[in-house]
Amino acid sequence: MPELRKDPIIGRWVIVATERAKRPKDFKIEHNNIKEGVCPFCEGHEDMTPPEILAIREGGTKKNGPGWDVRVVPSITPVLRVEGNLNRRGHGMYDVMDGVGAHEILIETPDHNKEPGQMTIEHVSKIARTMAYRIADLENDMRLKYVLVFKNHGRVAGGSHIKHARSQLIATPITPKRIKEKLIGARRYFEFKERCIFCDIIKQEMDSQSRIVYDTDHFVAMSPFASRFPFETWILPKRHSCDYHKITEEEMLDFGKMIVTVFGKLAKALGDFPYNLIIHTAPFRAHKKKGYWDTIAEDFHWHLEIMPRLTQVAGFEWGSGFYINPTPPEEAAKYLRDMEI
Amino acid sequence: MPELRKDPIIGRWVIVATERAKRPKDFKIEHNNIKEGVCPFCEGHEDMTPPEILAIREGGTKKNGPGWDVRVVPSITPVLRVEGNLNRRGHGMYDVMDGVGAHEILIETPDHNKEPGQMTIEHVSKIARTMAYRIADLENDMRLKYVLVFKNHGRVAGGSHIKHARSQLIATPITPKRIKEKLIGARRYFEFKERCIFCDIIKQEMDSQSRIVYDTDHFVAMSPFASRFPFETWILPKRHSCDYHKITEEEMLDFGKMIVTVFGKLAKALGDFPYNLIIHTAPFRAHKKKGYWDTIAEDFHWHLEIMPRLTQVAGFEWGSGFYINPTPPEEAAKYLRDMEI
Repeated sequence: MPELRKDPIIGRWVIVATERAKRPKDFKIEHNNIKEGVCPFCEGHEDMTPPEILAIREGGTKKNGPGWDVRVVPSITPVLRVEGNLNRRGHGMYDVMDGVGAHEILIETPDHNKEPGQMTIEHVSKIARTMAYRIADLENDMRLKYVLVFKNHGRVAGGSHIKHARSQLIATPITPKRIKEKLIGARRYFEFKERCIFCDIIKQEMDSQSRIVYDTDHFVAMSPFASRFPFETWILPKRHSCDYHKITEEEMLDFGKMIVTVFGKLAKALGDFPYNLIIHTAPFRAHKKKGYWDTIAEDFHWHLEIMPRLTQVAGFEWGSGFYINPTPPEEAAKYLRDMEI
Repeated sequence: MPELRKDPIIGRWVIVATERAKRPKDFKIEHNNIKEGVCPFCEGHEDMTPPEILAIREGGTKKNGPGWDVRVVPSITPVLRVEGNLNRRGHGMYDVMDGVGAHEILIETPDHNKEPGQMTIEHVSKIARTMAYRIADLENDMRLKYVLVFKNHGRVAGGSHIKHARSQLIATPITPKRIKEKLIGARRYFEFKERCIFCDIIKQEMDSQSRIVYDTDHFVAMSPFASRFPFETWILPKRHSCDYHKITEEEMLDFGKMIVTVFGKLAKALGDFPYNLIIHTAPFRAHKKKGYWDTIAEDFHWHLEIMPRLTQVAGFEWGSGFYINPTPPEEAAKYLRDMEI
């Protein structure tokens, strides 16, 4: 069972794999082992993954067989395990719990070579809907507090050597530090202004237009004012909502249009660029007693972040929490805004 | 002038380069441009760097000529500039200030091919002393609040294509978020226990020995309990002290022995491994009025972190602040402890 260990100074959690510990030579092997073999995520290879948790399929096709559009399977190398209880405990002055959680792979397309910028709007909205279904389902597990949807594309961004487009969901038994920081920041602003900070950002950005990349009926894409990375792009719903999975059917189709357009622009500007994508939605509250997070629905606002990895994160960033961005977001936004696709 | 921009939600600062903005093609060029030319950091090439700020030299040698052991020069591509004032201002709901600070390169050796594990103890203690001198000098600039000493080795760790061993110092006009988090965590612990958290960690680790890599009269090297990275190693002084630059002469020599031994072990285990190194020391307080940081001297404890970059930091880490470490620190420590050099 993996262990969750808490840094005693700043409270950051680390998932420590206690089985299959990697020794120095394992890292060396991994570095040189960029293989191109049979892809377990392609249509027709369904038996190469664990049985599917959910799939959007054509009528008449069979579970774990071909005929699907989007497919969710458990990770074969899960960082957290679904079995067991948290077993929170001390270890001298340190805090530990068992690595309980869920780790799922969302295969975005049956086609090995298709990236989001090349998909149809309808297809991307199916992916978005599948994510919402999975979040809603995981919320039923009372041990879980959060689910992070993310994506790693390209080796530099931590992606694997298999390029087949897929996202991941990791559900954790604690609300992650990064989310808590945002919740706390958003709440402080709300206490001061009695308005959502994200709604205010959207308003200011729509007024100025200088950092807007694209906007649709229901969404806006922008280069954030304090972008950490060149061409960093955030997508926010114009309607205030803290929960990604409460997205409406109409918004879902519009979200598909937004994703296809933004990725189309990024790919035209940057080629096959390495990136990380994350969705920050509110923590699970269905099983919570009244208390600290009661105000989330009014002060938090879900959003999606695309982080192109064109620059390296190095000692200064690790040591300070500062970032160095060589491309002003106004120039990145103008470049992407003007990019015809 | 670069700009410091504050993320309005979580308060993270970003340094945005406003001159020489990088457009998409600049990143592509950089990726393919791994040149091996004349090294500006080698002895005899002193005219290829800006004039030196400080050097430890043989008697009778001339400034900006050969004959030095350790040499500090301004960065030719500084991320912050020494001229001007902060000019703190708002931009709608956002916060901005000018990118005032200092960015220096500490050339660790005249020899192009020497890494810390291959240097003499005396030489490494000269490097350590030079760092202390620079920190003490930068403290005199009332606009500055912090100096981070760091090192990027290897391309994966953000190092440049020139391998010549060197560290960097970046002095900032605000105390970085990462440091503040540690100061706050350490203070909270002190308020609760009336003891330094780092002293308590050293005590627990020395008692258990399971995560100790090496220890000398004045220092201890360990794999931290919640290590983020495989073979992450921290070096702490056994004597409680919050300021790196208040290190004594006797400790300096012992510190040299520690660095040479730890890097010798790491290099034998991992080969020429990519890494980031940082020193976390207390913020500047010489020009401060009484107030918030008055307790730093009792509750903070300087330390050095070595982060081998064998794993990629990806979407999950960016989105959650969690880390995934495939090598338990107990196994990493045992491996390094047993490694004969």
